[in-house]
Amino acid sequence: MSVTAGTPVVNEDEAALATPFVKCLVRLIRAQDTYGSQDGASDAELLARFIVNEQQRREIPIIGDPDADVMWRFNIFYTAVGLSIEARTRLVASPITMISHEGFGRVLLTTGRLVVFSKTVRDVHRFGFATLRKLAEAGAKLVDDAIAAIEAYPEVARA
Amino acid sequence: MSVTAGTPVVNEDEAALATPFVKCLVRLIRAQDTYGSQDGASDAELLARFIVNEQQRREIPIIGDPDADVMWRFNIFYTAVGLSIEARTRLVASPITMISHEGFGRVLLTTGRLVVFSKTVRDVHRFGFATLRKLAEAGAKLVDDAIAAIEAYPEVARA
Repeated sequence: MSVTAGTPVVNEDEAALATPFVKCLVRLIRAQDTYGSQDGASDAELLARFIVNEQQRREIPIIGDPDADVMWRFNIFYTAVGLSIEARTRLVASPITMISHEGFGRVLLTTGRLVVFSKTVRDVHRFGFATLRKLAEAGAKLVDDAIAAIEAYPEVARA
Repeated sequence: MSVTAGTPVVNEDEAALATPFVKCLVRLIRAQDTYGSQDGASDAELLARFIVNEQQRREIPIIGDPDADVMWRFNIFYTAVGLSIEARTRLVASPITMISHEGFGRVLLTTGRLVVFSKTVRDVHRFGFATLRKLAEAGAKLVDDAIAAIEAYPEVARA
């Protein structure tokens, strides 16, 4: 990634937007925008809701249920991970999330009989990433780890 | 199972109550009864809530969210399956359930990286079994199938 002095963040964002995972996430968001109310929004604008910096994180209370908006972001992020895995392996990867009323829970991604990803999550209320690059990296890492697991146990992933 | 003429249902129920799966389920229910308010209840009485006959099934509306009581029964049943698997294999089997507001959803049981059980469920509102024997058989079959899967992929179940 070539970063010109003076505009590092912009170039960093552009590089993040060009990654396969972020493109997949944007496609999913646009697909769910049934009435096209966000057709005029740029990719960066659509993803703005996923960006939560350290200051903002601290200000989000973690009391009570995570709201519908954060649950939507949380679920669509892991759906994009599943779709990216499918695009590269031709295996359907289904996310399954179980979040309690307190914002604690588990996320699992499975293909066939293989658990390709399993994570205990907390503070779902604060789900988000500091920058677009961090979002792109987190998604790409999940996809890469999942594909490594599928390659380690190919017949279980197809069972 | 020896069934004496005249009292087949009673003996059938007794046989069901003596199976390892049903004993495990009863232990779990008693463990959750923190204040001991049901200490005087027999095992059959504790399990009465799981018995839903065909007539009762039809009368349960499947509109709106399944209520807290049925979700509790649903979750404790699959937790008992997980515990029974653990008792026989020494591997922790965690259930993860994702039920939508309409009573549709998925249940997964995993050990290590192996999905030992995966099911799409519907009409969770009507979760229940026609008789104690059916309950015992359904639980035992899930446990047996899960153990067969673990034996088929032993290293994945321990990954």
